[in-house]
Amino acid sequence: MNFFELIRTDVETKARVGILHTDHGDIPTPIFMPVGTQGTVKALEQRNLIELNAQIILGNTYHLYLRPGMEVMKHFGGLHQFIRWNRAILTDSGGYQVFSLQDLRRISDEGVEFRSHIDGSRHFFSAKKVVEIQKTLGSDIMMVLDECVPYGADEQYTRRSMELSYRWAVGSREHFKSIPQIWEHRQFQFAICQGGMFPNLRKEYAERVIQYDFDGFSIGGLSVGEPTELMYELTDLTTDILPATKPRYLMGVGTPENILEAIERGVDMFDCVLPTRNARNGQLFTTQGKINIRNQQYKYSNEPIDSAFADDENYTLGYLRHLFIAKEILGLILATRQNIRFYLWLVRTAREKILTGEFRQWKKEFLSSYLEKK
Amino acid sequence: MNFFELIRTDVETKARVGILHTDHGDIPTPIFMPVGTQGTVKALEQRNLIELNAQIILGNTYHLYLRPGMEVMKHFGGLHQFIRWNRAILTDSGGYQVFSLQDLRRISDEGVEFRSHIDGSRHFFSAKKVVEIQKTLGSDIMMVLDECVPYGADEQYTRRSMELSYRWAVGSREHFKSIPQIWEHRQFQFAICQGGMFPNLRKEYAERVIQYDFDGFSIGGLSVGEPTELMYELTDLTTDILPATKPRYLMGVGTPENILEAIERGVDMFDCVLPTRNARNGQLFTTQGKINIRNQQYKYSNEPIDSAFADDENYTLGYLRHLFIAKEILGLILATRQNIRFYLWLVRTAREKILTGEFRQWKKEFLSSYLEKK
Repeated sequence: MNFFELIRTDVETKARVGILHTDHGDIPTPIFMPVGTQGTVKALEQRNLIELNAQIILGNTYHLYLRPGMEVMKHFGGLHQFIRWNRAILTDSGGYQVFSLQDLRRISDEGVEFRSHIDGSRHFFSAKKVVEIQKTLGSDIMMVLDECVPYGADEQYTRRSMELSYRWAVGSREHFKSIPQIWEHRQFQFAICQGGMFPNLRKEYAERVIQYDFDGFSIGGLSVGEPTELMYELTDLTTDILPATKPRYLMGVGTPENILEAIERGVDMFDCVLPTRNARNGQLFTTQGKINIRNQQYKYSNEPIDSAFADDENYTLGYLRHLFIAKEILGLILATRQNIRFYLWLVRTAREKILTGEFRQWKKEFLSSYLEKK
Repeated sequence: MNFFELIRTDVETKARVGILHTDHGDIPTPIFMPVGTQGTVKALEQRNLIELNAQIILGNTYHLYLRPGMEVMKHFGGLHQFIRWNRAILTDSGGYQVFSLQDLRRISDEGVEFRSHIDGSRHFFSAKKVVEIQKTLGSDIMMVLDECVPYGADEQYTRRSMELSYRWAVGSREHFKSIPQIWEHRQFQFAICQGGMFPNLRKEYAERVIQYDFDGFSIGGLSVGEPTELMYELTDLTTDILPATKPRYLMGVGTPENILEAIERGVDMFDCVLPTRNARNGQLFTTQGKINIRNQQYKYSNEPIDSAFADDENYTLGYLRHLFIAKEILGLILATRQNIRFYLWLVRTAREKILTGEFRQWKKEFLSSYLEKK
């Protein structure tokens, strides 16, 4: 069976419905992938994710490479076995984290040298090494190493960086195909479209990289500080070029409104730390809008956390507020669960609405009500 | 139906099997009660506790009185409703916490004035007020206010303190009976046997307090630093005096070995923060003994967390170690679950062994194997 099955494209917009067929289950798209940086989606158990119907989660190559390290990963039979998760996993290339290390990394044609944020030890990631690490991790979907251009970089810097990322991408694909699998399940590899904030570079990069038969294409280097409209424009321009037959993944995006706008522009896959990180700060994403649960107004609230979602326990906003004020771990658990539940509901509903041809109308109505109550 | 049903007393020891009949379910004794200080057993969800077959949990009057406060408690319909737990709850009197506040409290015949550890605000607990607070909380079992004598207090101080606690206990019982119920379910009240480290005072206190028809008797002021053998001796002496028809609760105790020794001496109920607090520090109580999960030796361990307990996910010690080293919340969740599971297994097994007449033999064998592997 083909990896990606395109089921329907919206008539009014570029929104698409598809399925990613992996050896760890089918993933309906559009999909949101909860971030499990260190082999756990923070504050949730794996079985919570199954209850919430998460079909795929993310792992971060940079973090897992440093801790627990690849010897442990090999010993346990890869990331799925290590964390006891038999649904799909996508791993990033580690590039984003390494390039965030500012003073701790040095870049060359061969790759990037960096120092661990944990113990200062020196390490080197080449495009090929990152393929090997991800083969060991055994992720269903892996990313190529790329340089993440800082926001504000000029065109000259961006072009030079883009050429480097391009060479790495080509080398990564060759290496991916030439070295053997370690585990038995199929693995897929995505290229990452770069080009900074320059539409001409974004266009050129996408046109060149689609010449290679990657299993999917992601859009990287966005949501790094640029105006939201520019992010939408660059996404739109890129999905115009990407082949309809391959899945498209907008990396690190974003808010519920960002996700719906990107779905409208033809994106299939998303990941973001927003729902999990903000949950731990007391920000809840709900079908009624965003709320800060620490707010005094919830002290006596008998309302459920989100009236749209039935829950056996039906915890109230008042109880959840108490848990946050009292700094209890259960607060983090319940808030995270709500936010992931909401994000998965959002993409699932978008999918249903694309299938029934009501996507644009629903998106408009939902966002108007959702944003109004912020 | 009577509150306490005594089912069997061991022939070789003073160990007992019983049932506490509450309006929130039957509680088999001996029982361990997980501590849910602020309306949550730290790091566990209520449904986890149900899975683990916890029949009763503790709430702390001092903490809940300060936060969220009694107005919130009234508004939500009591503690059970507030935290969505429809099994039994026991609340302490707040005395233990208040008397731990060293510089922040002033004691008189009427009660104790103290300052909140949260915001420094002044409050006053009298024996009667503590009854009223617990009526509002709606706990199934409540405790009387008592003065907790610091370890090392001399006989004169201890006697004076004991007389105060005694007067408070008598006043508490009268008040408990004279004021109306707030919620519909039955509430029960336990006295607390004091007397410090003096066998003669312990004996005298127990003999005097059993003249009053409390629903149960607890043994307080132990496990405060004294030699373990003295704790056992004072417990033994007290249960010799307490009526067989009433449940006995040894407060704040203890290690697995403490619990088995106290069961042997006729105690029915236990609570302790040890399994939950130590879990968060990486100490696991298992049927194989205690382990520190951060230890390097578990880095590559494929062993389940406790081979005696089947678990859907079957997380390994290696993964749990990684979660602790990486400071992940899931580590706290899994370790806490293991420890509570183990404590509940311990008292459940003790109960079975008392019923089959094998308690003493089993205890000996279990402790020898458990302590050896520490």
